Amino acid sequence: MYRTHNCGELRISDSEKEVSLCGWVHKPRDKGFMVWVDLRDRYGITQLIFDEQRSTKKLLEKAKGLGREFVIKISGKVIERSSKNPNIPTGDIEILVSDLEILNKSQTPPFTIENNTDGGEELRMKYRYLDIRRSPIKEKLIFRHKVSSEIRKYLTKLNFIDVETPYLIKSTPEGARDFVVPSRMNQGEFYALPQSPQTFKQLLMVGGIDRYFQIVKCFRDEDLRADRQPEFTQIDCEMSFVNQEEVLKTFEGLVKHLLSAIKKVSIEKFPRITYMEAMSKYGCDKPDIRFGMELGELNDVSKHKDFTVFNTAELIIGIAVPNGNSFTRKEIDNYTSWVRRPQIGALGMVYVRCNDDGSFKSSVDKFYNQEDLSNWAKITNAKNGDLILILSGKKHEVRAQMSALRLEIAENINLRNPEEFAPLWVTDFPLLEWDEESKKYHAMHHPFTSPKIEDIKLLETNPKEVKANAYDLVLNGNEIGGGSIRIHDKNIQSLMFKYLGFSKEESESQFGFLMNAFEYGAPPHGGIALGLDRLVAILDGSESIKDYIAFPKNNSGKDIMIDAPSALNKEQLEELCLALKEQSE
Amino acid sequence: MYRTHNCGELRISDSEKEVSLCGWVHKPRDKGFMVWVDLRDRYGITQLIFDEQRSTKKLLEKAKGLGREFVIKISGKVIERSSKNPNIPTGDIEILVSDLEILNKSQTPPFTIENNTDGGEELRMKYRYLDIRRSPIKEKLIFRHKVSSEIRKYLTKLNFIDVETPYLIKSTPEGARDFVVPSRMNQGEFYALPQSPQTFKQLLMVGGIDRYFQIVKCFRDEDLRADRQPEFTQIDCEMSFVNQEEVLKTFEGLVKHLLSAIKKVSIEKFPRITYMEAMSKYGCDKPDIRFGMELGELNDVSKHKDFTVFNTAELIIGIAVPNGNSFTRKEIDNYTSWVRRPQIGALGMVYVRCNDDGSFKSSVDKFYNQEDLSNWAKITNAKNGDLILILSGKKHEVRAQMSALRLEIAENINLRNPEEFAPLWVTDFPLLEWDEESKKYHAMHHPFTSPKIEDIKLLETNPKEVKANAYDLVLNGNEIGGGSIRIHDKNIQSLMFKYLGFSKEESESQFGFLMNAFEYGAPPHGGIALGLDRLVAILDGSESIKDYIAFPKNNSGKDIMIDAPSALNKEQLEELCLALKEQSE
Repeated sequence: MYRTHNCGELRISDSEKEVSLCGWVHKPRDKGFMVWVDLRDRYGITQLIFDEQRSTKKLLEKAKGLGREFVIKISGKVIERSSKNPNIPTGDIEILVSDLEILNKSQTPPFTIENNTDGGEELRMKYRYLDIRRSPIKEKLIFRHKVSSEIRKYLTKLNFIDVETPYLIKSTPEGARDFVVPSRMNQGEFYALPQSPQTFKQLLMVGGIDRYFQIVKCFRDEDLRADRQPEFTQIDCEMSFVNQEEVLKTFEGLVKHLLSAIKKVSIEKFPRITYMEAMSKYGCDKPDIRFGMELGELNDVSKHKDFTVFNTAELIIGIAVPNGNSFTRKEIDNYTSWVRRPQIGALGMVYVRCNDDGSFKSSVDKFYNQEDLSNWAKITNAKNGDLILILSGKKHEVRAQMSALRLEIAENINLRNPEEFAPLWVTDFPLLEWDEESKKYHAMHHPFTSPKIEDIKLLETNPKEVKANAYDLVLNGNEIGGGSIRIHDKNIQSLMFKYLGFSKEESESQFGFLMNAFEYGAPPHGGIALGLDRLVAILDGSESIKDYIAFPKNNSGKDIMIDAPSALNKEQLEELCLALKEQSE
Repeated sequence: MYRTHNCGELRISDSEKEVSLCGWVHKPRDKGFMVWVDLRDRYGITQLIFDEQRSTKKLLEKAKGLGREFVIKISGKVIERSSKNPNIPTGDIEILVSDLEILNKSQTPPFTIENNTDGGEELRMKYRYLDIRRSPIKEKLIFRHKVSSEIRKYLTKLNFIDVETPYLIKSTPEGARDFVVPSRMNQGEFYALPQSPQTFKQLLMVGGIDRYFQIVKCFRDEDLRADRQPEFTQIDCEMSFVNQEEVLKTFEGLVKHLLSAIKKVSIEKFPRITYMEAMSKYGCDKPDIRFGMELGELNDVSKHKDFTVFNTAELIIGIAVPNGNSFTRKEIDNYTSWVRRPQIGALGMVYVRCNDDGSFKSSVDKFYNQEDLSNWAKITNAKNGDLILILSGKKHEVRAQMSALRLEIAENINLRNPEEFAPLWVTDFPLLEWDEESKKYHAMHHPFTSPKIEDIKLLETNPKEVKANAYDLVLNGNEIGGGSIRIHDKNIQSLMFKYLGFSKEESESQFGFLMNAFEYGAPPHGGIALGLDRLVAILDGSESIKDYIAFPKNNSGKDIMIDAPSALNKEQLEELCLALKEQSE
């Protein structure tokens, strides 16, 4: 047996016990006559001691030879420390080592294995197995395990069944790009990796499974943004014989359970807001509601003067920054520059200082009097001491700009507390969105989302206005899940495909199996999919998902540790009957 | 709300309650003045009743219009049945329906949704969503969920952490064939789908995760046998600072936990046998030990007479069939034909009848006398009334033949009771096996398996004799898992690659990241991987894994329901810079 205990569990009550421990040499300190070693494993750190008086000369010498990250096994006696360390649970004791075995040596690691390492991102990714030894990363992986365990526990208790759906499925050229997998046994044909198990979970409902869940990898061959991965993990769920309300309640319950079981946080409020309301109040469909600064629409109180910028704008929006009157002119100018960056794209910004005496001082005093400014303050909810910031322009653009500015300022003035949790449902999404490029309507969620029954008649005449039984789960300004009540009627599904510009042949060849299934008694059903990577990060008070993935890929989709993807050899390509073509420019 | 209860939960104590139920019309029975409907959902069947006296005419007419597999919602009152059905839990009550809503109609299903269906395999696969509605299939999926839940529970309790490893990894041309995935963002390069997370779990051990598990899909692009799938599910586990004994104990515990939690079976014995012993006692490395019929080697007591067949054989093996003397001559002849089939390949079979009076009658009485036959009986453990069957030939072949015969007979005389569980560890596997085709040694488990330390010196001189710290978990004659203590020393790993015929460049380019990791303090570690599909099937008393997979592929690797794999369109191929080549003959 290698060890009797791990490095995190010995206490003063274990004094005088003979124990064996294994682990990594975290920090050796050689004082000549005495050597201390911090021995580390997943569970903690225990101090080892070797000294001239109590250790043999040979043992002391051996201890002096230990380097950082050596793997050792020791035996010895638990003794009380003379100078205790209150910062670690094992800090009252140390081990007087009687036997030391070096299980494996280590070269000097390319970066320090400490909470704050000197290693850059690239280096830490190349040596990810060393990065994982660092407490912050290790704890994040353990945290992820806890979250997924609690998710399984909650759903299993509610009679959800974990059903594995296939990874080698059929490519559907709509939507995001599929990763494809050539089939050797069926030459010239390809499988695709699932972007989600959507159609399979619907078929499980047709199959009477009633309540399904799966924590499952999904794949999208898309150009990666900083926080996207080509493979990502979804908590995929579906229920039969439910309306939207029951789905929302079930997954409110999940979020509450996670917050209570893992964060010891009890959430009372779980507000709901429609998509329209979210867009007008926050300028985006995933608002962070941990703080106010709601958008005020100022058109009615701003277009009566000679200020052309506002008079020609489709929409004028103001927000009140709490205590923002303390911003210096330079700070305000910096925000003006910030909104003018091409990523945001505003042309300019108007500000109004709300003085403590109730008076206002604005950058447009030339055009607007105190009464005008007072109206703006009313609409933006500004109080004495606040600062009103105003953007104007085309509706969609100015909302997006103001939403970005709102988050930026909130971040800077510490209104986005990562230990506070504000979940929110956004409901009543539009069914379709117009795509300028393809000149077609796209499904805002996906083509299986049910329109609101009362809106179906609008599909012919005013498709933009059709609302869907679709909902997003938002946590602290992040979309952590989305779902819908699905179509379960073949005729409505056919209609949807038609409006999405599928020919009859296309919908038949791609989704014929689902349409077919709807002919044999499909129950009403709906569900949701949550992004596990992001959910875990946010619950842990972080917004970077990479640290919560054991072996993430970089922004080019590469795993630089194992060097994947890489070239195949000639034989492999030949067996697959594939040839590489030169890249066209 | 669609329903107040499900179709499996109402009892006599619910009488007089007003309830709503949803489900599928399992069986409508129209007696003219009265209509009964068996309403089915995942949870059970509840009888609905409509009649002339208590239902409106309109409602009765609507009920008469219901067809099999229609999806309906009903409201009504729970009443006591006049003729109770003791075979179902809801059999004491029925629902007097007051309101009926047809949620979705159904065409007549292509096969009956009954426990014993009239649908053939192909049809059931094409309409798998209907097949899943059948109780036997649905229950198998639920059973699988229970097994995986209990596995997670057991391992989590023992401090194992569920860590997700990547699916898009690097192709390694050794071993079974990889499925590959062209990368669009890195043109000309490919990912591979993992055959197992082997190297990643080892890196997690190097990373100090200490105890890892994952229930994970793995992929092999191999020609499929009846019971193989291109994608399959593994319970993948790894532990640090353990020797073989601790791994075996941990996973004995898992099997015992599953048997006790799910099958209410308590297992006392968990025998171990070496590979060598298994081969000589049972002729195979995954023996079914629910019954005896152990192989007796008869060389020493058979080569002294003029029977050329035995005299020229490398090995002569007999087994005693309990009470086999009751076999007719025709039955014995049938077994002779059976072993002569090309799949088995024996040339002939000798038999000895052990009469009740202690005398013997054999097919080789011309050569052997009663004393010879009595010796054979002793060695094969044959008793009066048994039948000894004897095969001879080359060692490897005759063992395989006899192993097959032993299982065939045991199956036929009902010695393989699916409700009896006999687990077994097979240990001390050879490290290497000689491959005639490539004239190379292959790793019997995989190249990361540690040789027994005391055998390392034999690697140069007698590689065949080197034993590995490798073990298989066998249950009822099926290999349900295999694992080993891994190499954690870079030099030994290099040596292994050398003996397996890797050039230095090959091992560097394929496994350089692992070799590198071994330089930075790799702990001793070992683990196991269990096949979930098979484990679930065997625990449920079945040997067919397909029924335990929601959407299995057929023997050509095709999903005939969704029609995958299939051709890609031109644009997709172009984006990937791939061209199809004509298949070479």
